Amino acid sequence: MNIEMIRAAAQRLKGHVVETPLLFSPVIDEIAGRRVFVKAEAVQVTGSFKARGGWSALSALKPEARGAGIIAYSSGNHAQGVARAAATFGAPAVIIMPSDAPAAKIDGTRALGAQVVLYDRERESREEIGEALARERGLTLIRPYDEPEVIAGQGTTGLEIARQAAAFGITDGEVLVCCGGGGLTSGIALALEADAPGMTVRPVEPAGFDDVARSLSSGRVVQNDRASGSICDAVLTPAPGMLTFPIMQHLCGPGLSVTDAEARRAVAAAARHLNLVVEPGGAIALAAALFHGDEIVGDHVIVTASGGNIDMEMLIDILREEA
Amino acid sequence: MNIEMIRAAAQRLKGHVVETPLLFSPVIDEIAGRRVFVKAEAVQVTGSFKARGGWSALSALKPEARGAGIIAYSSGNHAQGVARAAATFGAPAVIIMPSDAPAAKIDGTRALGAQVVLYDRERESREEIGEALARERGLTLIRPYDEPEVIAGQGTTGLEIARQAAAFGITDGEVLVCCGGGGLTSGIALALEADAPGMTVRPVEPAGFDDVARSLSSGRVVQNDRASGSICDAVLTPAPGMLTFPIMQHLCGPGLSVTDAEARRAVAAAARHLNLVVEPGGAIALAAALFHGDEIVGDHVIVTASGGNIDMEMLIDILREEA
Repeated sequence: MNIEMIRAAAQRLKGHVVETPLLFSPVIDEIAGRRVFVKAEAVQVTGSFKARGGWSALSALKPEARGAGIIAYSSGNHAQGVARAAATFGAPAVIIMPSDAPAAKIDGTRALGAQVVLYDRERESREEIGEALARERGLTLIRPYDEPEVIAGQGTTGLEIARQAAAFGITDGEVLVCCGGGGLTSGIALALEADAPGMTVRPVEPAGFDDVARSLSSGRVVQNDRASGSICDAVLTPAPGMLTFPIMQHLCGPGLSVTDAEARRAVAAAARHLNLVVEPGGAIALAAALFHGDEIVGDHVIVTASGGNIDMEMLIDILREEA
Repeated sequence: MNIEMIRAAAQRLKGHVVETPLLFSPVIDEIAGRRVFVKAEAVQVTGSFKARGGWSALSALKPEARGAGIIAYSSGNHAQGVARAAATFGAPAVIIMPSDAPAAKIDGTRALGAQVVLYDRERESREEIGEALARERGLTLIRPYDEPEVIAGQGTTGLEIARQAAAFGITDGEVLVCCGGGGLTSGIALALEADAPGMTVRPVEPAGFDDVARSLSSGRVVQNDRASGSICDAVLTPAPGMLTFPIMQHLCGPGLSVTDAEARRAVAAAARHLNLVVEPGGAIALAAALFHGDEIVGDHVIVTASGGNIDMEMLIDILREEA
C-alpha cells in the first residue's frame, strides 16, 4: 500500500462517485466545545464511503475477471458499494450478508441487482463462505478491507479531507474515523500522511467492540468477545485486518469508543443540525467529538460521518427520543 | 447584476461556506425515469443556500455599516444565513420573521445571536416593518432576494453546479430550482449562462403559489392570491422580485409547480435514498423531477435541494407516512 495507489484510485473514481462535503454547524461546535468538521460520506452514492472502495476494486480488475463475476461479504455497506460498481460495469455480483443486517441494506443491495446470500453472524464464518463460493463459481472475491485496492479507494476520502480542510485554513489536528476492519481508517491515514502530515487519525469504535483500540494499545491483534449486540452494525468487525492493522499501528493515535446511547444522540444531532441522515455506526466519530471532548486534543477536530443506511423505523425512533 | 459579481462573491465565500455536493442515487434515477443530480444545499451551513447570500452581502458592506448593524426580513432561512454572517463579523442583527415560521427556524435564528421580531404574515408587511426599523436604528437592510450582492451569493451555487456536473460529463439539460422570490433562481441562471450555457434553469413553486411561473408566462409581474397555506414555507413569496424577474424573464424556461403531497413524498425520498434532510420548500424541485417527468426534457436533470430546516415533528410525520 502506498499513496500512489490512492492517487490512482482517485483518478479512476472521478465522475463515478460523489466528492462529499466537509460540513460544519455553529450549534455542533457549541456542543463539542471546539470547531467540528464533518466529512459527510453518508451522502456518498450507495449511502456510504464503501462506494469508493467498491469502484476502486472493480475498476482495477481485468475485464475478463469482472465479466466472470465478483463476490463480497459485508454487513451491508460494502455490499451496496460493490453491487453498485458491479451493476455499472455489467458484472454479476454475489453478496454474502448477515441475516440480521438492516432491511434497508439487504433491500438496497438487491435493488442494485446483486444476488444476496444470507448467513448467521453468530455461527458461520463469512470469510469461509465467501472463499468457498469464489472457488466454486470462479468469482473474484472483493474483501471489505483487507484488499489493497479497497483501501486505496477508501483513502481517496483522505485526499479530499486534506484539500477541503485546507480551504478552511485547517492543516493539523485530530481526524476521528468510524472504524470496523480499518479500511477507511488506514486509507485516510495514508492519504493524510502524504497530504496533511500535521493531522493524526484516531479510530473510533463502539464500546465493547473496540478491537482496534485494544490491538493498538497492546501492540498485537486482539479479537472482540462478541460478534453482535450493538446498534452500530456497520463496524462490528471481529478484529483489525492483516493489511490494515500495520498501517494503523504505524500512523494512528489511540482509539476512542462510544456507547450505543451516545451514537443515538449523534444520529439525532446530525439530522437536526447538519440535515444529514447518519446510521449509528457512521455516527460514532461525531459522538466522540460531541461527548468525549476531554479525550481529544486541539481547538478543532475532523470526523467522518461514514454511512447513512439506517432503517426508517430506527431513524424515526431516534428522532422521537433524542432530537 | 453580472457574472463578475458572482465570481467576486465566490472569492469572498471561500472558506466561509460549504461547497455542497452534487448527489445522485440509482433508486432516485429509477423513480424519475432519468438521471437526477441533486445540488444539496440542505447541508450548507445554517441549513440552506441562504448562507451564501448572507455572507456575500455582509462581506460586501463597509466595516462601518456592518458595525452599525443589519436588519433582514425572512421566513427563516435568509434569517439564519444573515444572522450567522453577522455573528461571525460581530455585527448586531435584527431579523423580522413571520409568527407562523417553523420553530426550528425561529430557534435557529435566535441561537445565532440575532434579535428576532415576529410579525403576522396575513396582516402586516414585512417590507414596511423592515424599512421602518432600518431607518429608526440606522441598520442596513439586507433584502432576501431583491439585493444585488444577495443574488451574487446565491449565484455561486450555479458556478459549483456547472463545475460539478461537468465532472459527470453533463454540460446541458434542465436545472430545476426551488423558487420563492427568485434570488437563487436568477443567480443560478446568470452563473450557468456564463459557465454552462447549454443548461436551462426552470423555477419550481408550490401549486397555488406559482407567481413566478404565471409572471413568466404572462410577461408581467403577477401576485399570489394567498400569503400562506402551504407546508412549503420557505418559498411562499407574494411575487417575483423587481431585480430577479427581468433576469428570470431573460434566462429561464417555463415554471413548474408541485402539490404539498408531492413535496412530502420528495422529502421522504431524499431522506431514504440520499440521506438528506430536506424541508418541503427545499424539496419541490426534486418533487418535480420525481413526479412531473413528462414536463421535463432530456435524459438527465439537475435539481436544487435548497434547504433542510424542517421541524423534527414534521419530519417524523413525513417519514412515518411516506418513507
